[in-house]
Amino acid sequence: MIYKDKTKPIRERAEHLLSLMTLEEKVGQLIQPFGWQTYEHIDGKIELSESFKQQVADGGVGSLYGVLRADPWTGVTLESGLSPRQGAEAVNEIQRYAIEHSRLGIPILIGEECSHGHMAIGATVFPVPLSLGSTWNVDLYREMCRAVALETRSQGGAVTYSPVLDVVRDPRWGRTEECFGEDAYLIGEMAVASVEGLQGSSMDSEDSVAATLKHFVGYGSSEGGRNAGPVHMGRRELLEVDLLPFRKAVEAGAASIMPAYNEIDGVPCTTNTDLLDGVLRGEWGFDGMVITDCGAIDMLASGHDVAGDGRDAAVQAIEAGIDMEMSGEMFGKHLLEAVRSGQLDQAVVDQAVRRVLTLKFRLGLFESPYADPDKAERVIGSAEHAQLARKIAGEGIVLLKNEGGVLPLSKSAGTIAVIGPNADAGYNQLGDYTSPQPKSKVTTVLGGVRGKLAAAPERVLYAPGCRIKGESKEGFELALSCAEQADTVVMVLGGSSARDFGEGSIDLKTGASKVTGNAESDMDCGEGIDRLSLKLSGVQLELIQEIHKLGKPLIVVYINGRPIAEPWIDEHADAILEAWYPGQEGGHAIADILFGDVNPSGRLTISIPKHVGQLPVYYNGKRSRGKRYLEADSQPRYPFGYGLSYTQFKYANLSVGPETILPNGSVNVAVEVTNAGERSGTEVVQLYVTDVASVVTRPAKELKGFRKIELAPGETRLVEFTVGAEELQYIGQDYKPVVEPGEFVIHVGSHVNETLSAKLIVREG
Amino acid sequence: MIYKDKTKPIRERAEHLLSLMTLEEKVGQLIQPFGWQTYEHIDGKIELSESFKQQVADGGVGSLYGVLRADPWTGVTLESGLSPRQGAEAVNEIQRYAIEHSRLGIPILIGEECSHGHMAIGATVFPVPLSLGSTWNVDLYREMCRAVALETRSQGGAVTYSPVLDVVRDPRWGRTEECFGEDAYLIGEMAVASVEGLQGSSMDSEDSVAATLKHFVGYGSSEGGRNAGPVHMGRRELLEVDLLPFRKAVEAGAASIMPAYNEIDGVPCTTNTDLLDGVLRGEWGFDGMVITDCGAIDMLASGHDVAGDGRDAAVQAIEAGIDMEMSGEMFGKHLLEAVRSGQLDQAVVDQAVRRVLTLKFRLGLFESPYADPDKAERVIGSAEHAQLARKIAGEGIVLLKNEGGVLPLSKSAGTIAVIGPNADAGYNQLGDYTSPQPKSKVTTVLGGVRGKLAAAPERVLYAPGCRIKGESKEGFELALSCAEQADTVVMVLGGSSARDFGEGSIDLKTGASKVTGNAESDMDCGEGIDRLSLKLSGVQLELIQEIHKLGKPLIVVYINGRPIAEPWIDEHADAILEAWYPGQEGGHAIADILFGDVNPSGRLTISIPKHVGQLPVYYNGKRSRGKRYLEADSQPRYPFGYGLSYTQFKYANLSVGPETILPNGSVNVAVEVTNAGERSGTEVVQLYVTDVASVVTRPAKELKGFRKIELAPGETRLVEFTVGAEELQYIGQDYKPVVEPGEFVIHVGSHVNETLSAKLIVREG
Repeated sequence: MIYKDKTKPIRERAEHLLSLMTLEEKVGQLIQPFGWQTYEHIDGKIELSESFKQQVADGGVGSLYGVLRADPWTGVTLESGLSPRQGAEAVNEIQRYAIEHSRLGIPILIGEECSHGHMAIGATVFPVPLSLGSTWNVDLYREMCRAVALETRSQGGAVTYSPVLDVVRDPRWGRTEECFGEDAYLIGEMAVASVEGLQGSSMDSEDSVAATLKHFVGYGSSEGGRNAGPVHMGRRELLEVDLLPFRKAVEAGAASIMPAYNEIDGVPCTTNTDLLDGVLRGEWGFDGMVITDCGAIDMLASGHDVAGDGRDAAVQAIEAGIDMEMSGEMFGKHLLEAVRSGQLDQAVVDQAVRRVLTLKFRLGLFESPYADPDKAERVIGSAEHAQLARKIAGEGIVLLKNEGGVLPLSKSAGTIAVIGPNADAGYNQLGDYTSPQPKSKVTTVLGGVRGKLAAAPERVLYAPGCRIKGESKEGFELALSCAEQADTVVMVLGGSSARDFGEGSIDLKTGASKVTGNAESDMDCGEGIDRLSLKLSGVQLELIQEIHKLGKPLIVVYINGRPIAEPWIDEHADAILEAWYPGQEGGHAIADILFGDVNPSGRLTISIPKHVGQLPVYYNGKRSRGKRYLEADSQPRYPFGYGLSYTQFKYANLSVGPETILPNGSVNVAVEVTNAGERSGTEVVQLYVTDVASVVTRPAKELKGFRKIELAPGETRLVEFTVGAEELQYIGQDYKPVVEPGEFVIHVGSHVNETLSAKLIVREG
Repeated sequence: MIYKDKTKPIRERAEHLLSLMTLEEKVGQLIQPFGWQTYEHIDGKIELSESFKQQVADGGVGSLYGVLRADPWTGVTLESGLSPRQGAEAVNEIQRYAIEHSRLGIPILIGEECSHGHMAIGATVFPVPLSLGSTWNVDLYREMCRAVALETRSQGGAVTYSPVLDVVRDPRWGRTEECFGEDAYLIGEMAVASVEGLQGSSMDSEDSVAATLKHFVGYGSSEGGRNAGPVHMGRRELLEVDLLPFRKAVEAGAASIMPAYNEIDGVPCTTNTDLLDGVLRGEWGFDGMVITDCGAIDMLASGHDVAGDGRDAAVQAIEAGIDMEMSGEMFGKHLLEAVRSGQLDQAVVDQAVRRVLTLKFRLGLFESPYADPDKAERVIGSAEHAQLARKIAGEGIVLLKNEGGVLPLSKSAGTIAVIGPNADAGYNQLGDYTSPQPKSKVTTVLGGVRGKLAAAPERVLYAPGCRIKGESKEGFELALSCAEQADTVVMVLGGSSARDFGEGSIDLKTGASKVTGNAESDMDCGEGIDRLSLKLSGVQLELIQEIHKLGKPLIVVYINGRPIAEPWIDEHADAILEAWYPGQEGGHAIADILFGDVNPSGRLTISIPKHVGQLPVYYNGKRSRGKRYLEADSQPRYPFGYGLSYTQFKYANLSVGPETILPNGSVNVAVEVTNAGERSGTEVVQLYVTDVASVVTRPAKELKGFRKIELAPGETRLVEFTVGAEELQYIGQDYKPVVEPGEFVIHVGSHVNETLSAKLIVREG
């Protein structure tokens, strides 16, 4: 059998297999039922469901979504879910059944969520992408993706639904945390790292998975920051901004992509032939698989209303270039009927099946369909990965303010009160798209601070103060009394994207955990939780205002998923750390920074506004955007690229050579960066480009390069960049990239508003 | 001389004149210096400036901007400015000089601002366009435009810079007041009325002026509501929404158009060849003149940065289809140099000159260049026009709430306290783009209420309470004491778009006018005054909260230029009237409604949000827009089309016939509307269309017809509409209008969320 012969080219194997398949078997390859519904977990044993067996009998199951996903949506809990070993065994049972009970023995493509760690019990939970972006450390993120791929594949997961490459334009959006930030260039760099990290050098190795780029495209620009809302955007902006990271990732070899829920200018991405056929497969030559978002085909018939019914929706979708429907079965039924009734050409189905099979061949699933439970047990949630998670979390934390050098804290003297709803709520550190994890695995800020002062536990006081949401102030008294007794107050405020993990809530009066079953939800962020304010939820501001009255040094740590606009805190706190959702090791990473064991090196990848009424505030808007409102300017409180260190960096001697180039030429940009302080420190050297005048309008500055470098005290390093067509081009009048002759300015510095500048001339070619 | 022969066709006259002109004379026709700088007004005498004379000598002056404009920007005050008679005489002197001292005697095109009345001292000040839109009375607005044209032309003004046809998407924008609202269809109906009203049956009559449509296009969708900011919009939305009113007005024969400051997807409207040549002159066949906005050519070189310098900007602009630069002279100089240096083909200049001359011929300026000062004195600010202004203001006021029928008030009993910063601040009623007017001409709410209770002046108490802006509460005491003494409190709150009129401010402690020279500015709206909040400015909310504690019946009147989001007031006031800026007769019109002499018939043309963080909230967004935020839904507080009456209207027996049509067919829609109350009343019957499923996404409902009808108590009227291709079509996949076969729903009712519905089927053609 050619298709089983691994020495044959994949194209030949896929064609052969396709030629053997019935129509039922073909459409079976295009569906993806919910993975957690294929089995029951009873007393440590897996029992496959009858419906799954029937599906296999009826023509097969191309893919499963979330076999190992545990969360309130799946109904799988920490108690009822599977350990890593069990997970691998369960996937193997499912896979074995499908292979052995089908005519052609086609393995199932197991699809899993892996945005910042495999969404499964026991997996390492890394910081959310907004934190990953804030590291500006592409190598570290690539390393994380390798770890995630290893953990996922060891349980049989073969394709991930990450990375998220959306360009955030509105932090009201609850999925802001899932994105790297607001800059397409930086997202593009992370995108390449994720493809390299997840897919490795070869996808058929046992430590690699296929990456799915999402959400293609414009999803970060939804109207009003409302999830999946319509996008108002012209073609030039689309090509230049939102499509850029996807192009980079496709060039890096991404194997799969997911169209976004949203429409752009009236056309849903799920049926956008121009984007799927024209840009993605046409111009970019993408040869992977296209899978919808969950329920996106239904949405065509009820929501977007571009289709009269489900079958019409399915036909429109496959004709537009969709290969598989995520987490659904109706797609297959509709296609079957559509082909039988003559509404749809079978060749269109064949093309989709060909792509699905090709991905399975590329992943080596026909040769190695099974996971290794021993390995799963060994690698998932390993100490090594925890260490990596801690390092990444440390690099993703942004020091926003440090008045009078209140940070770092001394380990040798003083009492510290750790106060706030996120001080000891581990589940609130994990962010959305996380399965529940054993409490012991997650280190909170309280835990991290206690760890640092392990020799003097009496020097650490704790009070929750209040919940994230809700109006109760019953915890204020304890909080004030703790703060009163302390020399320094660390307030851990922010938000929560924790769906109910059944861990119970915290007793505000005593600080004790109340394990009383289901917690009242504190969720104020995450998918579907869009906000109309950027202020702290609940009574958090009042809590800190009360505590501030005591006059103690006041350090604020934010653990949250989107920018917080709280001008009072910006003004009154002595120090502010923005930790985003820092993952399971977040408490250690934050304590590392609080006590100076790690020098903060995170930099903002999203502008932090002063008020929701300023939105949008992203740094690289057009120069004609208004300068101010009646009440305030239109500038962010903290700009893109910003972040303090415990040392100071000086920039000098920026040079651009040659000063004049041809449109296809390139220049060397060099700058001297000095650590002018007395501690080692890590700086993110940022390069921005300005096109002084151009045929179409341009942003004032655009990020086009960055380097993260560590410098010893007093050390000077020459940092070099190459700037050429890729950095100078823009999408011109004819919607094609062009390097336009004229004057450019190259800026290098520590954030967008603090740079040295030098001129560059591009002369006529 | 052919060009002086009015029996010859305009085309021939223009060609002949052009053939006689030097290059200097040609570029002279394309400039528009500031009108108020051409003369000085000294002791009742007009003295022409040397620079103007020099310009005439150097080749002439095509047009003048704002000869009669008085405001802080021009430096012309009520005292230093011209009366209507003097204005007409001044224009005549200018015109005479230009004609008699130039080789070819070409009259000057006098351009004036006329958005809601001629922006000149003494002219009738009608309500602002947001109020005009709220009347839903196209005939009344047309009548107003006739009055404005008469007043303007009687002083020699020949072209107006109105109507403003921008579709408002973000009420943070300070120019919201200048627009009719958020719905393109309604704006389109008003657009046609304005062209008919301003231009009359023939533009060369002495009571007509040329209309300039602005701002072409997308200006109401600027990023963040920031004036002239970049617009993110796809071509389909542009064609379907923002361009619609312009197309309607061009079809109605509009003679002039003004590109907007903003860019769309990277291309400034000033140089958007695709829009100016392709859509406007190409598809629509527009044969009028295109004039930039003030300073828009400079902005190309500094702001948009699509041009290297001023000359490059001028060349780009004229090549893109610009004929004249508003309020500037550099355009001519640049063009002269560009032609001389060979950078620009003289034929391009000729084409622009041809269009300017054509407009002058169409206006009859060569035959009748002079105004009639007697007539100016007679018609400007006439009692008849004041009466019209009062009627329009009355129809534009929207009753938002009337709990327990607290309104109308009784004239025969009770003491009324009229309190608030807009209770007696006439200049705050006039809105932006108004010249100062004698105080005696403007009736405030206090004046209006006093008028109603003229027989018992002791029953009206007054206190300003506070200013619009600022933190002073020194007026609270007087306000509380007034309210304490009254049976009913009418609070007049809101905003101000009054640029400093030098009228002095109000003494908060006594309520007396302090005529102390320049007033501290209270401006929180108007061009360039964008806000990041939709709350009342200053301490107005605190004032009403204090007064509310007294427990008196509390009626709120808003006088302002953009939606106010004050949920507390929505909840606690007994009645709320939104009067927008109601113009000089506003106080009478509001009192007419307060006391029931006029039954309110205004309806919202802009959704009123609950919070700035909900933006955008316009009613006809796509169906996929998100439904809610964490804190609240995404719905407005008061929906589009909403407005109460003192009577109730019932809808019954909606019929659509035939129920099935071909794509080019049409149906009759009929509904019975009954006045079910005990007062005469006027209802705005609104027709909306839903396209149930379509190839590209559609709004849930779109306004496609309306009728304003007056009904006696108990009266039932059959209201009929014709719905055909124009109402059913949308911009399809190929960017062309299409009526797609399938199911539609026709809704008729009193506002967008309160309608009867009936089905309509369009079958395949």
